[in-house]
Amino acid sequence: MSERLTTKREAADAVRAALRRTGLRWADVAAHLGTPPVWTTAALLGQHPVPAEHARRAGQLLGLGEDVVEALQLQPHRGPDPAVASDPTVYRFHEALSVYGPALKELIHEEFGDGIMSAINFRVDVARRPDPDGDRVVVTFDGKFLDYRW
Amino acid sequence: MSERLTTKREAADAVRAALRRTGLRWADVAAHLGTPPVWTTAALLGQHPVPAEHARRAGQLLGLGEDVVEALQLQPHRGPDPAVASDPTVYRFHEALSVYGPALKELIHEEFGDGIMSAINFRVDVARRPDPDGDRVVVTFDGKFLDYRW
Amino acid sequence: MSERLTTKREAADAVRAALRRTGLRWADVAAHLGTPPVWTTAALLGQHPVPAEHARRAGQLLGLGEDVVEALQLQPHRGPDPAVASDPTVYRFHEALSVYGPALKELIHEEFGDGIMSAINFRVDVARRPDPDGDRVVVTFDGKFLDYRW
Amino acid sequence: MSERLTTKREAADAVRAALRRTGLRWADVAAHLGTPPVWTTAALLGQHPVPAEHARRAGQLLGLGEDVVEALQLQPHRGPDPAVASDPTVYRFHEALSVYGPALKELIHEEFGDGIMSAINFRVDVARRPDPDGDRVVVTFDGKFLDYRW
Amino acid sequence: MSERLTTKREAADAVRAALRRTGLRWADVAAHLGTPPVWTTAALLGQHPVPAEHARRAGQLLGLGEDVVEALQLQPHRGPDPAVASDPTVYRFHEALSVYGPALKELIHEEFGDGIMSAINFRVDVARRPDPDGDRVVVTFDGKFLDYRW
Amino acid sequence: MSERLTTKREAADAVRAALRRTGLRWADVAAHLGTPPVWTTAALLGQHPVPAEHARRAGQLLGLGEDVVEALQLQPHRGPDPAVASDPTVYRFHEALSVYGPALKELIHEEFGDGIMSAINFRVDVARRPDPDGDRVVVTFDGKFLDYRW
Amino acid sequence: MSERLTTKREAADAVRAALRRTGLRWADVAAHLGTPPVWTTAALLGQHPVPAEHARRAGQLLGLGEDVVEALQLQPHRGPDPAVASDPTVYRFHEALSVYGPALKELIHEEFGDGIMSAINFRVDVARRPDPDGDRVVVTFDGKFLDYRW
Amino acid sequence: MSERLTTKREAADAVRAALRRTGLRWADVAAHLGTPPVWTTAALLGQHPVPAEHARRAGQLLGLGEDVVEALQLQPHRGPDPAVASDPTVYRFHEALSVYGPALKELIHEEFGDGIMSAINFRVDVARRPDPDGDRVVVTFDGKFLDYRW
Amino acid sequence: MSERLTTKREAADAVRAALRRTGLRWADVAAHLGTPPVWTTAALLGQHPVPAEHARRAGQLLGLGEDVVEALQLQPHRGPDPAVASDPTVYRFHEALSVYGPALKELIHEEFGDGIMSAINFRVDVARRPDPDGDRVVVTFDGKFLDYRW
Amino acid sequence: MSERLTTKREAADAVRAALRRTGLRWADVAAHLGTPPVWTTAALLGQHPVPAEHARRAGQLLGLGEDVVEALQLQPHRGPDPAVASDPTVYRFHEALSVYGPALKELIHEEFGDGIMSAINFRVDVARRPDPDGDRVVVTFDGKFLDYRW
Repeated sequence: MSERLTTKREAADAVRAALRRTGLRWADVAAHLGTPPVWTTAALLGQHPVPAEHARRAGQLLGLGEDVVEALQLQPHRGPDPAVASDPTVYRFHEALSVYGPALKELIHEEFGDGIMSAINFRVDVARRPDPDGDRVVVTFDGKFLDYRW
Repeated sequence: MSERLTTKREAADAVRAALRRTGLRWADVAAHLGTPPVWTTAALLGQHPVPAEHARRAGQLLGLGEDVVEALQLQPHRGPDPAVASDPTVYRFHEALSVYGPALKELIHEEFGDGIMSAINFRVDVARRPDPDGDRVVVTFDGKFLDYRW
Repeated sequence: MSERLTTKREAADAVRAALRRTGLRWADVAAHLGTPPVWTTAALLGQHPVPAEHARRAGQLLGLGEDVVEALQLQPHRGPDPAVASDPTVYRFHEALSVYGPALKELIHEEFGDGIMSAINFRVDVARRPDPDGDRVVVTFDGKFLDYRW
Repeated sequence: MSERLTTKREAADAVRAALRRTGLRWADVAAHLGTPPVWTTAALLGQHPVPAEHARRAGQLLGLGEDVVEALQLQPHRGPDPAVASDPTVYRFHEALSVYGPALKELIHEEFGDGIMSAINFRVDVARRPDPDGDRVVVTFDGKFLDYRW
Repeated sequence: MSERLTTKREAADAVRAALRRTGLRWADVAAHLGTPPVWTTAALLGQHPVPAEHARRAGQLLGLGEDVVEALQLQPHRGPDPAVASDPTVYRFHEALSVYGPALKELIHEEFGDGIMSAINFRVDVARRPDPDGDRVVVTFDGKFLDYRW
Repeated sequence: MSERLTTKREAADAVRAALRRTGLRWADVAAHLGTPPVWTTAALLGQHPVPAEHARRAGQLLGLGEDVVEALQLQPHRGPDPAVASDPTVYRFHEALSVYGPALKELIHEEFGDGIMSAINFRVDVARRPDPDGDRVVVTFDGKFLDYRW
Repeated sequence: MSERLTTKREAADAVRAALRRTGLRWADVAAHLGTPPVWTTAALLGQHPVPAEHARRAGQLLGLGEDVVEALQLQPHRGPDPAVASDPTVYRFHEALSVYGPALKELIHEEFGDGIMSAINFRVDVARRPDPDGDRVVVTFDGKFLDYRW
Repeated sequence: MSERLTTKREAADAVRAALRRTGLRWADVAAHLGTPPVWTTAALLGQHPVPAEHARRAGQLLGLGEDVVEALQLQPHRGPDPAVASDPTVYRFHEALSVYGPALKELIHEEFGDGIMSAINFRVDVARRPDPDGDRVVVTFDGKFLDYRW
Repeated sequence: MSERLTTKREAADAVRAALRRTGLRWADVAAHLGTPPVWTTAALLGQHPVPAEHARRAGQLLGLGEDVVEALQLQPHRGPDPAVASDPTVYRFHEALSVYGPALKELIHEEFGDGIMSAINFRVDVARRPDPDGDRVVVTFDGKFLDYRW
Repeated sequence: MSERLTTKREAADAVRAALRRTGLRWADVAAHLGTPPVWTTAALLGQHPVPAEHARRAGQLLGLGEDVVEALQLQPHRGPDPAVASDPTVYRFHEALSVYGPALKELIHEEFGDGIMSAINFRVDVARRPDPDGDRVVVTFDGKFLDYRW
């Protein structure tokens, strides 16, 4: 069998197993690394290359193998996981885009002109907002506006 | 030919044409109706039934026909428009969900337990945030947490 | 142009328009015809051939044209409407089947043996059940068990 | 090979094998745990996180390994299994939704207004109803009504 | 608008409308033409070119226009109609092929060797067989065996 | 690795290997078990649960392992195998349904009324019919008529 | 309504109608134009831009309108017509590619090296070859070999 | 693990490895077996059952294991390999069918009447034709005409 | 019928018809407007909103109606046209991306780090480069590099 | 287990692992082999057969096993990797083709006539162009024009 790298999916599985074993939470890892929670979680699940120093420190905190620490640093192939898209917790975001996507497009063009919200120069945050009728999940998408410029 | 109602898609086309003719903006319509901009835009594009009084007032503002005013009040079939999903302005939201969806799921479960952000008891807002590196599009999803409860 | 029949879809559009015009409800039509509400609604939307006498009486109640009354009696091509499957109100039923379908299959086989719940010798009902935490939608599927019999 | 958790699918396979080995039925497991049969079956098949105490007691009853008991407690990715959707026993439910879904939508809106039956605050039951023409499978979907509320 | 022929689909619609208007059945048309019922029905629905003499006689029997009589004679593009495949009456045939197709393949090869049942040199018949437990639909596929021959 | 059952697909592979090793034919197995050839072949390929006694006798005849004999008895997930649907020997049946399916539907409704041929209370047979122009494959589908009955 | 050109599909429909009206065959048109039969047929069906002089002469022969003659000259969007791919006469070519495509690839590489048969510098012919066992359809694909050349 | 046969795909991999190891070409194998090159290549790649004597001789020539020699004789499931269809060398054939398929259908019907070129009683050949502008790949499809015969 | 705007597709059809009528080329229009050829062509085909002044001047040059001039200015829904993707002239670009896309990704990351070539701050040009072996099509994609920046 | 060759995908994994281990870059490998960077990267990722001498030298540089060196020389099945197409870095190229593909087609036909840019006699280059507003990725597609020639 020829040489191959541990994949980022295998690394993500190892991270999940380590969280379970150690009882740590994603928020703990983010606090330990000093990085935002959504970025941290996405990166350790394989959607971003983790800088070497952060990968090493995550490895120490979680007791990950060297191969996992290296895999975390690899450049990912980002993309949708069809098995996740129909999970109800994730699906509701897709449903909201079905219902409100055309309206968001209209209002972005009305306010900013012809262009897009960047998904690259971009951050996202999730928070809990207490509410007497039941607490609310508040997710903020925050991306630079890019105008179509030839 | 048998009797039929003006469809909500035809009504949306009529609204767009009226905006073009009158020079009004979605924000103007929202202000006139006293309703939130994203709700207003989505509703006039056919994703929500518009209450009779609001439909009448929108009709007066925009000079819409009686059939259009009635169509706006109909119960919609909500759902995705494949032709819109690949428009770059809308696609960036889908791409962000591809990259960050699994992380949002992890963090929602960590913070709230097993459940979802409702897409029904839900509101969304879009805003411009000035930034010296280029202004930013900020979109907030805000839905009630629903726990799996048998 | 060669002769053709009014389609069942056109008939369904005419029925919806007539309900809107007359202010009648599906429940009123069902009561008038003496048929169950779900059967009545499905049949007038084109999923069942309506017996001639019922079609005639529905036509009188709703002021439908002769061509519509005839179309209601035609044998339908039953089948899914993709545009409806992703409507949130309908989608929740599909989601419930995703989550609970395999469990229903296990329990049907455990209780009845190898076979199916018929979707032909079958009825379905929808009801409101008051609940202090918010009223509930109760939908009952009731079909004859058919065992695999060679 | 890096560390990984037993998956919920592997756990479901182990549960099936244990049922076969022990001769127990899903109904026995549900009775032992004091949980509803459909919830119990769905949860052990991997569609719900099983509370730790229930997982431990199921493990004792069925002689499951520690890794399986732990896997049962993991948060699932819920979603459809395409290989199951075309199984005749499950397909009949999908066919019934094709035929009656639009009617259910009409009647829910007529009775409750604009909104949905929750699939989260939701329970489902399956029962046998004796009938001289052949016993019947009766499946009840019971979910809280949620109205579109901005 | 440039010249065009009435399509075979329009012709099929005209045939259906004529059957409805005249009260004739497919079996009557087949008897009148002296052709097998399934062939006759399939051909008038557009799946076979109808010989000129038969088309003329069908046209007289059903009062079809000249354009329809001509369209019936055109060479068809045969093929599946997705909207029909999920109709329950047709779907059961597809389901039977899902369940028994691999077995049919094994037994054809065992009996005849490597080859196929022709779908071109082929006929099909449908009959009712009385049965005290409920009459049965009996459909016979009868095609020439063709062996793979280089 | 947690406990799991031999799958029905693995069992089918073992049956095929045993047929090859022993030189027996499907017809021999059917004769030995006293069951119809198509049922026998489909069941051993995994589309039906094989009754315990038949599984044991098939195991003895073919020299199957205990795990295979047990797997044959499991309740299957029936369904289409896309890799088989385009095999020419199987595809011709699908093509015949494309061409004649709508005609079969018309004639079933004309003869029996609104309903279906059951695919559950159903049997199928394959036979050779000698013919001077080349022998013919004759496949008979025989299912109970079920009328739509509310 | 704004100005638009007759489409190539409308032109193809007009050509078919003219062939029917005049009793001419594709072979007659090819002979009249002095062009190969497959090219001629494909071009008049809209898969090639027809040179102006040929379009004019085809128009005279078939009595086509000016708009059709002009449409024949337009640059086409070439591509598959899904409705044609499953027609049995066309499907057999696709099936032959399924069975023999990988072998053709192996033999082209073995004989010519890494590259392709051009589908642009390419011609195709269809002929009848008499055979006592039944005449044969002989179709020849003839394209320039293009080697991968950086 | 239960008994299973080497698959035809594994056998094809073994044949490819043996060709590489021995330096033999497909043409050499065809010459050794006295069979046509395309048939030979397709059969060893798993698209035809190889007669026992030919399989044995191919096994000797290429040094294949007994399990591979046996696998070559198994009845295949023929069908498309999606990963091959988009390979440029194979894709050009599909593209040619997109462009010329409808024309081939017209000309086959014009010359032969309603029917098809058999893909079963069928052979295919590939040849090089020298040409000063660059040698050409010439592929000939040669199948018996089958007329629709009820 | 309620009011609606001429669509951008109808406007594109009108532009094509005007080019045909006037004998002008895309290059002429681009020169007249002083805009790059690819931008000009894409914009008039509906992929960009045309600034009011440019739309007016294009309208004068091509003799377009007022409704077309207005439609050209509308904000488009950009996106793929499946019917175009398989046209051979366009398909070759997709094929090149299949073959070279992963290599482009590797080299962009090696040279620039983690990020993308913008398709918004982006221009594209097409040119002819004379070559004794046959002139070459040279297409240049030129987009700003955007690094993933949280 | 029967003999098989190391696949080109496994070889690509080994190349990636060797780059990681040695710290070499794709540009280093290209310089060492004297081959263009995009060709080199694509070829080592498995999209081109690597000539024996180049494979041997790459193997020495990167410390690859003999099986990998041999796999690099195999003829590939080229084709799209769906998991890569939605990676944002690659997706932007597809999006650019969606937006500009029809315009490129128009301008190629206007300049060159009816034909295509070859993707076989073809090269591609990627470069960085410094720009005060942010450096730019410049990708050049350069293919021989091929005219449709019968």
